[in-house]
Amino acid sequence: MDRIGIGLAGLGTVGAGVYKHLIQNRAIICQRLGLQLSVHRVAVRNPEKKRSVSPPPETITGNWEELIDDPEINIVVELMGGIDIPYTFTMQALEAGKVVVTGNKALLAERGAELFEKAAEKGVPIFFEAAVAGGIPIIISIREGFIGNHIESIHAILNGTSNYILSRMTEERMDFPEALKEAQEQGYAEADPSLDVNGWDAAHKAIILASLAYGFWVSTSQIHVAGIEKVTASDIRFADNLGYRIKLVATIRANRDSFVEVHVHPALVPKQHVLASVNGVFNALMVRGDIVGDTLFYGRGAGQDPTTSSVISDLAQAAIWYDSGGKAFGFTPHGLYGKCLPIERVSSAYYLRLTVIDEPGVLAQVASVLGSHKIGISSVIQPEGHEGDAVPLVLMIHDAPFGTMQAALGRIQALACVKSPPMMLWVLS
Amino acid sequence: MDRIGIGLAGLGTVGAGVYKHLIQNRAIICQRLGLQLSVHRVAVRNPEKKRSVSPPPETITGNWEELIDDPEINIVVELMGGIDIPYTFTMQALEAGKVVVTGNKALLAERGAELFEKAAEKGVPIFFEAAVAGGIPIIISIREGFIGNHIESIHAILNGTSNYILSRMTEERMDFPEALKEAQEQGYAEADPSLDVNGWDAAHKAIILASLAYGFWVSTSQIHVAGIEKVTASDIRFADNLGYRIKLVATIRANRDSFVEVHVHPALVPKQHVLASVNGVFNALMVRGDIVGDTLFYGRGAGQDPTTSSVISDLAQAAIWYDSGGKAFGFTPHGLYGKCLPIERVSSAYYLRLTVIDEPGVLAQVASVLGSHKIGISSVIQPEGHEGDAVPLVLMIHDAPFGTMQAALGRIQALACVKSPPMMLWVLS
Repeated sequence: MDRIGIGLAGLGTVGAGVYKHLIQNRAIICQRLGLQLSVHRVAVRNPEKKRSVSPPPETITGNWEELIDDPEINIVVELMGGIDIPYTFTMQALEAGKVVVTGNKALLAERGAELFEKAAEKGVPIFFEAAVAGGIPIIISIREGFIGNHIESIHAILNGTSNYILSRMTEERMDFPEALKEAQEQGYAEADPSLDVNGWDAAHKAIILASLAYGFWVSTSQIHVAGIEKVTASDIRFADNLGYRIKLVATIRANRDSFVEVHVHPALVPKQHVLASVNGVFNALMVRGDIVGDTLFYGRGAGQDPTTSSVISDLAQAAIWYDSGGKAFGFTPHGLYGKCLPIERVSSAYYLRLTVIDEPGVLAQVASVLGSHKIGISSVIQPEGHEGDAVPLVLMIHDAPFGTMQAALGRIQALACVKSPPMMLWVLS
Repeated sequence: MDRIGIGLAGLGTVGAGVYKHLIQNRAIICQRLGLQLSVHRVAVRNPEKKRSVSPPPETITGNWEELIDDPEINIVVELMGGIDIPYTFTMQALEAGKVVVTGNKALLAERGAELFEKAAEKGVPIFFEAAVAGGIPIIISIREGFIGNHIESIHAILNGTSNYILSRMTEERMDFPEALKEAQEQGYAEADPSLDVNGWDAAHKAIILASLAYGFWVSTSQIHVAGIEKVTASDIRFADNLGYRIKLVATIRANRDSFVEVHVHPALVPKQHVLASVNGVFNALMVRGDIVGDTLFYGRGAGQDPTTSSVISDLAQAAIWYDSGGKAFGFTPHGLYGKCLPIERVSSAYYLRLTVIDEPGVLAQVASVLGSHKIGISSVIQPEGHEGDAVPLVLMIHDAPFGTMQAALGRIQALACVKSPPMMLWVLS
């Protein structure tokens, strides 16, 4: 049986999981694959550090360049973290003709265009199932399962930490800081949770999905990203009364004139929508193809084991490719799409919470601004509850372009009767 | 760009969908695949028949052997229906070295062992995504996405017709015959609905999933199959009161000593279980892997378009294989599992509805039989409602081997106080 040499860069949580499970499930992987996956060399930052797995000492190195130079290594697995060093490492590995497996979403979202250009030039593939949605096989499903489909839309919950926090805020009526603290205590949020709660972790994954679906690299400057930090317990309660849950939703969508929109932000999701019942640290993706219709994928979106499952899947595909050649899987650039819809032109319904002074005529002033922008109001509720001499006022807004809405919001915020910055959330239809 | 020649056998609902969408989405398929898929010849039973798609007349033949003999055909797509002719066709195609794509679940479930032996002998693959769960990419997910996992279990709703009927019985309190009639009027059930409602359509799919997961062909004689025909509106109401929905569930499971169990039957599913909320003609599969944990796949399980999506996915993979060689994908036999657990030894909790005479002492007699088999009762309810001088008696039974339960049931049925054959359903834990 052919032996495929693997160079593992990084032995943190996921790296250690990959090492452990490659050994634990060695028999079944060998039988199914018809090839033997052998970890030939492991590069770590500090070779002296104690770890949960113990590769033979002679396979460990503190210098990742040894993986590039080793002719017995056919596939490198990049699980280092960060962007700059992984970028250099990956470029050099491709240059040396090695197949690359990576779980690094930030790397792909920021530098994917260059990496895949190099991969195409050298004729070797990059596999990246582990970069999006943990153990859910969404990359292979979009790339191969739905290859015959124009992908009409993907709506997804892609960040387990945010989803855990919003779930706890909903279940326990907590405010954001309290729920974040709990998530940190439970190990579901990092000490520095910014990338998770500000939406950018989900945004990196959305960029990868959009690029795969539409054949061009969407740049970080072309997408709209907002986090969950400003969502309050009141917003969740008001949304609940209106029939919605608040979720951090990534939207990726193309219309037939091939404009692509990508945005990630908290959104009101109708309670009967399948994404509304995805709670805790789980991820879910609703993919709509023009042939297949609606499909849903659900599972654990992070953590050592689910992510390991995807890395091993990629290793198996990389090994088959290495063994037999074939199509260089990964991202296939093409020109059938290629333009992003400026966020100002994306239309949606919205939830708008204002803090206003408690006197007659306030609604008339707000409605007049919205009306002058031709923005329609679908309902108004004035919930109980004073904050000093101010009261909340909640408006549900009909479909309007985001840009128009932003302009109106600027004018509303400037009204003397409006006391704090307005809170605006998208509503998923 | 290389051109791959396709021979399409069958131009019924799915065949016509494949033909239509290969043309409609030609540009995107070409770009993503880097190969051109061209339908070279179409075999139909009656070349004169009017159809929804019109391939050029010179490509149509009434003789499927012309597909085998044509050297310009690299891939055959078997969408004929039935078993005997498709079997002969597929064997001859493999013999001629052509890659096979099939959506024929009955063919694979009944003759898969022989077909894959021939495929291995000739070194060509068989692809069959369309045979299980319509457009859901479950075959590629299990075969490649979860290649590193020991599959602990699959619980699945695999027959849209049965699920539609049970959903309508639940929503509208219909009895089975009425719901079946409605399903037929809506086009969700065939004029002869037997394969759908007797569980065998789902069983064929379960056999394919089990074989893929465990590397040996489970034979139809090794599995336990029951249909939904005997489920009554009362059963659904009693189950509802106890906190369950009734669904036709396929269970595929292996324990660590590598016994595999496969059974398909109506089962009580706890309302909070994700499968309980899968309604109408949808399919869903809950796959648990030892690394990935629980994942869920959901989508349309039948119909022209979803099934077409899967056939095109298989065509793309077949084309890549043909173009470059590589691993002959499909079923990989291995010896890590290989034994089916006899159904008598499979344990489960159960729902038991008896029709008994309305007098004291009846429960004592029933309980005494169960007790003598060491079968525990978790709860008893005596719902309202007389049928003549008889009344229903519902018992929830603790985990017990199916064989023991069958033996006890034989004795209970023989009791003078028991008026009709008992209704026993499995309970999903």
